[in-house]
Amino acid sequence: MTLFETDAPTAAELDARDPLREYRDRFLGADDPEIRAYLDGNSLGRPTKGLPEKIAAFVTDQWGARLIRGWDEQWLDLPVQLGDRIARETLGAAAGQTVVADSTTVSLYKLIRTALHARPGRTEIVIDRGNFPTDRFVVEGVAEETGSVIRWIETDPGAGVTLAEADAVIGENTAVIVLSQIAYRSGYIADVPGITALAHERGALVLWDLCHSVGAIPISLDEWGVDLATGCTYKYLNGGPGSPAFLYVNQALLASARQPIWGWMGDRAPFDMADGYQPAPSIRRFISGTPPIMGMIAMQEMLDLIAEAGIDAIRTKSLALSDYAIALYDERLAPLGVELSTPREHAVRGSHVTVDHPRFSGLMHALWAKGVIPDFRAPSGIRIGLSPLSTSFEEVEIVIDAIHALLTEADASTPVDSTKGA
Amino acid sequence: MTLFETDAPTAAELDARDPLREYRDRFLGADDPEIRAYLDGNSLGRPTKGLPEKIAAFVTDQWGARLIRGWDEQWLDLPVQLGDRIARETLGAAAGQTVVADSTTVSLYKLIRTALHARPGRTEIVIDRGNFPTDRFVVEGVAEETGSVIRWIETDPGAGVTLAEADAVIGENTAVIVLSQIAYRSGYIADVPGITALAHERGALVLWDLCHSVGAIPISLDEWGVDLATGCTYKYLNGGPGSPAFLYVNQALLASARQPIWGWMGDRAPFDMADGYQPAPSIRRFISGTPPIMGMIAMQEMLDLIAEAGIDAIRTKSLALSDYAIALYDERLAPLGVELSTPREHAVRGSHVTVDHPRFSGLMHALWAKGVIPDFRAPSGIRIGLSPLSTSFEEVEIVIDAIHALLTEADASTPVDSTKGA
Repeated sequence: MTLFETDAPTAAELDARDPLREYRDRFLGADDPEIRAYLDGNSLGRPTKGLPEKIAAFVTDQWGARLIRGWDEQWLDLPVQLGDRIARETLGAAAGQTVVADSTTVSLYKLIRTALHARPGRTEIVIDRGNFPTDRFVVEGVAEETGSVIRWIETDPGAGVTLAEADAVIGENTAVIVLSQIAYRSGYIADVPGITALAHERGALVLWDLCHSVGAIPISLDEWGVDLATGCTYKYLNGGPGSPAFLYVNQALLASARQPIWGWMGDRAPFDMADGYQPAPSIRRFISGTPPIMGMIAMQEMLDLIAEAGIDAIRTKSLALSDYAIALYDERLAPLGVELSTPREHAVRGSHVTVDHPRFSGLMHALWAKGVIPDFRAPSGIRIGLSPLSTSFEEVEIVIDAIHALLTEADASTPVDSTKGA
Repeated sequence: MTLFETDAPTAAELDARDPLREYRDRFLGADDPEIRAYLDGNSLGRPTKGLPEKIAAFVTDQWGARLIRGWDEQWLDLPVQLGDRIARETLGAAAGQTVVADSTTVSLYKLIRTALHARPGRTEIVIDRGNFPTDRFVVEGVAEETGSVIRWIETDPGAGVTLAEADAVIGENTAVIVLSQIAYRSGYIADVPGITALAHERGALVLWDLCHSVGAIPISLDEWGVDLATGCTYKYLNGGPGSPAFLYVNQALLASARQPIWGWMGDRAPFDMADGYQPAPSIRRFISGTPPIMGMIAMQEMLDLIAEAGIDAIRTKSLALSDYAIALYDERLAPLGVELSTPREHAVRGSHVTVDHPRFSGLMHALWAKGVIPDFRAPSGIRIGLSPLSTSFEEVEIVIDAIHALLTEADASTPVDSTKGA
């Protein structure tokens, strides 16, 4: 089948049939004529349309008018309130286990150290070689400082981990296994409930990095019995550049959980200014410093949209978008030698599609110049991020066609490169 | 002398003579009739007047229109660019040693661990019992995880540390001494060059917390030979609630410095996604996760104002404000039994004045209700923060008079409490 067959819908037809199509108008810049296709919402989601006014009003009416009183009135509670909101709308987690605080990296550090503290005597941390760099780097740093041993699962960059691969390395000496639910490059979805159950059978804890899944696919942390999780809020939660991460600690671990960065905002009574750190009894013990309020404003409107649309409808749209991307790939890019690095099977396909070709690293600026903005992942991957509420089927066709055009132009116009390559 | 003598200037006269008086109009809400006096800029500085428009434009024109390209074009460099700017305008530090990244608490954690790594074999951390809670708590946590010993300087809460007190505890086993340049409660200014030189004579490093000094008094980190420093940006740098801290590492330490939270943004080549963390050769190695860009916007306009006014003129105004506050205290509050907890000597007086009285804890809401907003520090301190570019002499008189009125009202109207107290 090709899309030129009469029963294959066009992008315009798919957009017209899309029950979530009107959400696209709720984002800023979706009608910007200079950006014909934005396929990198999985790195930086668009701002919601109401945000400029909302954030200006925050500065004027909250910070500027309430001044220091804002802390008592609203902001001190915001890290937990917003954490609970993220938990309810996207994580499948009950209140009191999630907080918004530091970067994902700092959160990973706190959680890995927490896991080692909770499993004394166990000396191994399991992680995959292909996990996102910051996850690997934090594990390397923690291993060095604690004398832990890293058991690497040997995967390709961003490929993801199967249950069988996890099964082969989790042992009786494993304290914690650190994995990404959705692999940052391939988009492969790991078997979170399966690997979590396996780890628990062997007495280990799990720490799931949800950066590429939160807001894009249904998640059920409580039901799956996940111990620890974190993820960033600037991808599918549209929190803005560098918005703070969320951090989840299962209620069962919380009372005895100990994280290493003891700070006044994690203390039982911050304003007593008393002697001796005493961690708050709640999830607040995972907060260290003064919470980054300015970075917590943007994501609130996106959480409203997610709640309104529903995560199941979002997932359905995501799969329709990636189905369409893969169909266009089959028709227009596969014949040029482009490889598909994303699984075809729905059950293990996240919300982005990665295609690889040795020439892609040289094409990015030309794509940007055409107003077509996907992501690039070294050495040769173009990652087409599908942010279900703001991405149209038309955008998917535009990016595939732009890649096709540049590759065929490049074939015609770069004989020197071809010679070099020979 | 009392201020009722003919040669004592009134608040209105002092404001009229103030060469920096016009800066007050550059802040949002300074003309809000509901806030008669804001004396807590040392906890949360006011937003600058242009900020609502500027931050809305950031959302629309930068994040919304440049989207992911913003990272390449501007944001990846911002933590160091903004660090260099803070260094130049406020820290007396050359470029390449300062970065804006995490909270003050996380920065303290990184720097204390860095110091211990740089002084292997030395097992003691020196800190004062009266230091700000988060500084003490971080030290307690690091001591526990590393097996270091804490040598406490026994000071009262927020009192500050003298050279003699430091001299008595810094020894040949001291790895690092962690002190605040300006004590959070008394406003006492420590002898940074003296204590730094003393620590160096004994082979120890210094880590100065500059939260209450940066932007309010001249600082010369390079000239003083300070090793490590950090401070927050939401006080006298007006960065907004929870804006990120800056972190300074002296160039001499940088090449071998190792901080514990290894993350992708501190790596030599973050986008290579390669195996094995290799710290960047520059101050970037102190970054861990994705930088909190949304929290870095507000402080930029304040740095413009500081550069324009000049830090020496700011210090002169600060001392004039605190001189006036102390004169009014002597005249109107001392007779009621209120104590002055701030030094009278200019050389050791920072930019806030703390007065203590057992009844103060019960007066805060009544002060707020009158539109008078100082800070409170347990158990009995009202802290009058003087933010030189946005605080007027009139505000100082209003807060002193409001305290006076409430104390005398309370005397008259609470016979029951008096009986209880007897």
